[in-house]
Amino acid sequence: MAQSASDLKRRLDALHRNRLFEGAVISIIIVSALLIGARTYEGVSRFDQVMGVLDWAVTVFFLIEILIRMAAEERLRDFFRERWNVFDFIIVVASLIPINDSEMVLLARLLRIFRVLRLVSLIPELRILMASLFKAIPRMGYVVLLMFIIFYIYGAFGSFLFGHINDFLWGNIARSMLTLFRIATFEDWTDVMYETQEVYPLSWIYYLSFLFLTAFIFLNMMIGIVLQVMEKESQRVDEENGEGEAVEVHRIHERMQELQQQLDRIENSLERKEGTRSG
Amino acid sequence: MAQSASDLKRRLDALHRNRLFEGAVISIIIVSALLIGARTYEGVSRFDQVMGVLDWAVTVFFLIEILIRMAAEERLRDFFRERWNVFDFIIVVASLIPINDSEMVLLARLLRIFRVLRLVSLIPELRILMASLFKAIPRMGYVVLLMFIIFYIYGAFGSFLFGHINDFLWGNIARSMLTLFRIATFEDWTDVMYETQEVYPLSWIYYLSFLFLTAFIFLNMMIGIVLQVMEKESQRVDEENGEGEAVEVHRIHERMQELQQQLDRIENSLERKEGTRSG
Amino acid sequence: MAQSASDLKRRLDALHRNRLFEGAVISIIIVSALLIGARTYEGVSRFDQVMGVLDWAVTVFFLIEILIRMAAEERLRDFFRERWNVFDFIIVVASLIPINDSEMVLLARLLRIFRVLRLVSLIPELRILMASLFKAIPRMGYVVLLMFIIFYIYGAFGSFLFGHINDFLWGNIARSMLTLFRIATFEDWTDVMYETQEVYPLSWIYYLSFLFLTAFIFLNMMIGIVLQVMEKESQRVDEENGEGEAVEVHRIHERMQELQQQLDRIENSLERKEGTRSG
Amino acid sequence: MAQSASDLKRRLDALHRNRLFEGAVISIIIVSALLIGARTYEGVSRFDQVMGVLDWAVTVFFLIEILIRMAAEERLRDFFRERWNVFDFIIVVASLIPINDSEMVLLARLLRIFRVLRLVSLIPELRILMASLFKAIPRMGYVVLLMFIIFYIYGAFGSFLFGHINDFLWGNIARSMLTLFRIATFEDWTDVMYETQEVYPLSWIYYLSFLFLTAFIFLNMMIGIVLQVMEKESQRVDEENGEGEAVEVHRIHERMQELQQQLDRIENSLERKEGTRSG
Repeated sequence: MAQSASDLKRRLDALHRNRLFEGAVISIIIVSALLIGARTYEGVSRFDQVMGVLDWAVTVFFLIEILIRMAAEERLRDFFRERWNVFDFIIVVASLIPINDSEMVLLARLLRIFRVLRLVSLIPELRILMASLFKAIPRMGYVVLLMFIIFYIYGAFGSFLFGHINDFLWGNIARSMLTLFRIATFEDWTDVMYETQEVYPLSWIYYLSFLFLTAFIFLNMMIGIVLQVMEKESQRVDEENGEGEAVEVHRIHERMQELQQQLDRIENSLERKEGTRSG
Repeated sequence: MAQSASDLKRRLDALHRNRLFEGAVISIIIVSALLIGARTYEGVSRFDQVMGVLDWAVTVFFLIEILIRMAAEERLRDFFRERWNVFDFIIVVASLIPINDSEMVLLARLLRIFRVLRLVSLIPELRILMASLFKAIPRMGYVVLLMFIIFYIYGAFGSFLFGHINDFLWGNIARSMLTLFRIATFEDWTDVMYETQEVYPLSWIYYLSFLFLTAFIFLNMMIGIVLQVMEKESQRVDEENGEGEAVEVHRIHERMQELQQQLDRIENSLERKEGTRSG
Repeated sequence: MAQSASDLKRRLDALHRNRLFEGAVISIIIVSALLIGARTYEGVSRFDQVMGVLDWAVTVFFLIEILIRMAAEERLRDFFRERWNVFDFIIVVASLIPINDSEMVLLARLLRIFRVLRLVSLIPELRILMASLFKAIPRMGYVVLLMFIIFYIYGAFGSFLFGHINDFLWGNIARSMLTLFRIATFEDWTDVMYETQEVYPLSWIYYLSFLFLTAFIFLNMMIGIVLQVMEKESQRVDEENGEGEAVEVHRIHERMQELQQQLDRIENSLERKEGTRSG
Repeated sequence: MAQSASDLKRRLDALHRNRLFEGAVISIIIVSALLIGARTYEGVSRFDQVMGVLDWAVTVFFLIEILIRMAAEERLRDFFRERWNVFDFIIVVASLIPINDSEMVLLARLLRIFRVLRLVSLIPELRILMASLFKAIPRMGYVVLLMFIIFYIYGAFGSFLFGHINDFLWGNIARSMLTLFRIATFEDWTDVMYETQEVYPLSWIYYLSFLFLTAFIFLNMMIGIVLQVMEKESQRVDEENGEGEAVEVHRIHERMQELQQQLDRIENSLERKEGTRSG
């Protein structure tokens, strides 16, 4: 009995790793994505029933696929250990929840969009790319914090100084920070400046200092990242071939000392001989 | 007979490699480009006949030039082996097709524009540049795919959420993705945001998260490319002079072992002597 | 007496370095920042008295905190040696100045915004980030000077040529330079160009040459910085492990000479023996 | 007589190299720049006479300064050998030409703006910066040529396709290329696209392909430059310390061979002895 179960597990694992099966899963994800995309077009409503059936078929397929993958694992715990599996599980389960409430239909559709992200969990190259993206987040953390402090200070300044000029842009600190983000992207920033310059002709100092500061910090961030990348790269190169040479040089040095000791012994033995001869 | 044919081939090859002939070809391409440019100006229509003759002359010249190059090759197959030759051949043949249909005149003109690209196939530096550009395409492939997935998800979201606010911008997933591309280029993105903020005040989250995500992935792409370039560069340097040193260090290590074996022999011989003496 | 004073100093220093105390200071700074942010919202005026009390409490807390840090130092001079302490001191003292004049209230508020910057002086990672930013300023100095010269020349040109077309944009050299900065950020630069092109159709030369020049210098600045970063990095790597190898190779070379001298002695002794034997 | 002349030369050279004199020249250049800037302000006309005198004084000072520098040189030819001197000479001479024609006043003013560039020729750091900028021009040459070809092709396309939609933007190839440059800077590019999309809904392909192509080539250019900078840097490092190590490793290898030869001799001599003993 136990054997037949493990046998089934092996078969399911083989199926799950099968190239054809993998291709089928990717195709279904793309079909699911196209279904979502198609729903955004008007005039599709008359195919609503067809699409409903297709949607239901995709959901069932995804459910079967994840059950196969869960059954193929030795223990269920192993399945949930990998983050992408957890992600897949949530996506599949979330789309199983029956939604009768018509207002919730939008939410259900939005949830289904995330199915497209399953492509990332299936294609190894995209997984690596995502992993490298997540790795880069902490190293940008403090720069983002510094940026936020600068935005906060300029935001408060802007709100106190320009709040009475344009309430929509500078009404409170949140609006000011959004306006500052707009200015940081150079999006119609002169319109904002010209407006406040009519009241405070010197307000260009505020805008230019802000633009220089953010550009400067952003540039520095870029340099910091390039530096870090270079450091990692040189470490990797060291481990691969660089250290190899260093290790070899070190071994040569050690051998050298052995040679010297050997020569010392030879010299001593020759001297002793000479000593006995002359003695 | 065969010899005179090969003699002709050699002469044609010499002509084709001739500096003057090359200069003439480049000049004709530039003239052809100027002819195309001139046609975009109004009031040029009265010189239409002159331009038609010139255009015909250019076409004939290009035909002769490519025939010379084809004849200069050992076998015709060799000619079509290089991609640039195939490109040149298509450009020349396409402009030979007689177009009487007045509606097709525009197409004929557009085809003639590509003649300018022949400059790239003629100037070696531009060929190298193009080759390096083509090489960079695969390494960007997966990043573009990831980008497309993000655009698709945000596009579907945008279409569901904002479709009823502005049909032109968010009407369907294709329009949404075009609008998202516009936002990614910072082109009047606040106009788009302010419009949807009137209905959903929190929609800034949608825009800012999208902008951060695309900027972040683009940045990562840049880093990835710099890293790859560095890797290649360090490999090249290794091959040129770095490995030279590593190889030499390795040889020193080997010689060291030979020395040690020699010293072992010397020491043994000395000990044997001492043994025979003391024995 | 002196001992109890130094004892107190030690205790204050311990308190100042205490994790909990540090957390409290950071929390108070964030509360202070939120207070400033809250003031930018309308309808907050009815909580004015509460906020006044909170503001007063924050001021008193900052005063006590800085007095503790000053008392914890061996000598008062040591406290002012570090720049961040001076910065903290100015921020705290400035907020102590009693402001009764209603017109000065805005200034008082603006001063209080800088309290947020105390976060930078407290979080070590941000201090390092700021230090690296300040370090980068001199190396950018001459590029900024060159940029300024180019802006000045183009500004004077623009003012002389286009001053009569649009007084707001090109009225004097200061306005021209602000307009040029706007053009350098690509902000509606074509609107500016199309306007002057109506009078001087060739004025696109002015704009394009300016854009190419600034983009080119900016690019060069980037390269310069990357180069400098690389130089520093390679120096650091040299100091860490690179030089280690070089030093070892050098020592091997020295040992080699010692070995050769030893072998010379052995050979001489053997030759002498042979000499005595044959002699 | 000849000696007194060379004595004078030495004195003039000393004066020209004097720190104070150099400072005076820089001050005068800045004053001259400020004069030019001041002229762009209205209401300055009443100080017109004062400014005329100042302008005349600056011109005379520059004339004297350049004469001193010319006289300080051994031969006049040496003076014109350096490009910056030629530049200074042209600036000074051009401002000496008497301009009575009122229409030429503008030209005279524009010429005077270039005096500010003399700052670059005087401050060594700026001279180095400019030299490195000029060095970068050839390596960008072919990329600019490729860019021009792409702009030309897209320009011709755009003119043929969209010429009848908006004559101002796409009227002829020159206008099309200016519009394409505008699109490449992301400046209101969607306005241009939306207009043509009304006639050709698929024209987004034209814009997006153009934007991807230019962005892609620009990115590649950046990579190429970084690569070149790295290559140069690694060469420099090699010359400084890297080669030093390589040379030392090579010498160790040579010494090793000498050691081996010496050991061969020792072994041979020992074998011979054994041979004679056993013989």
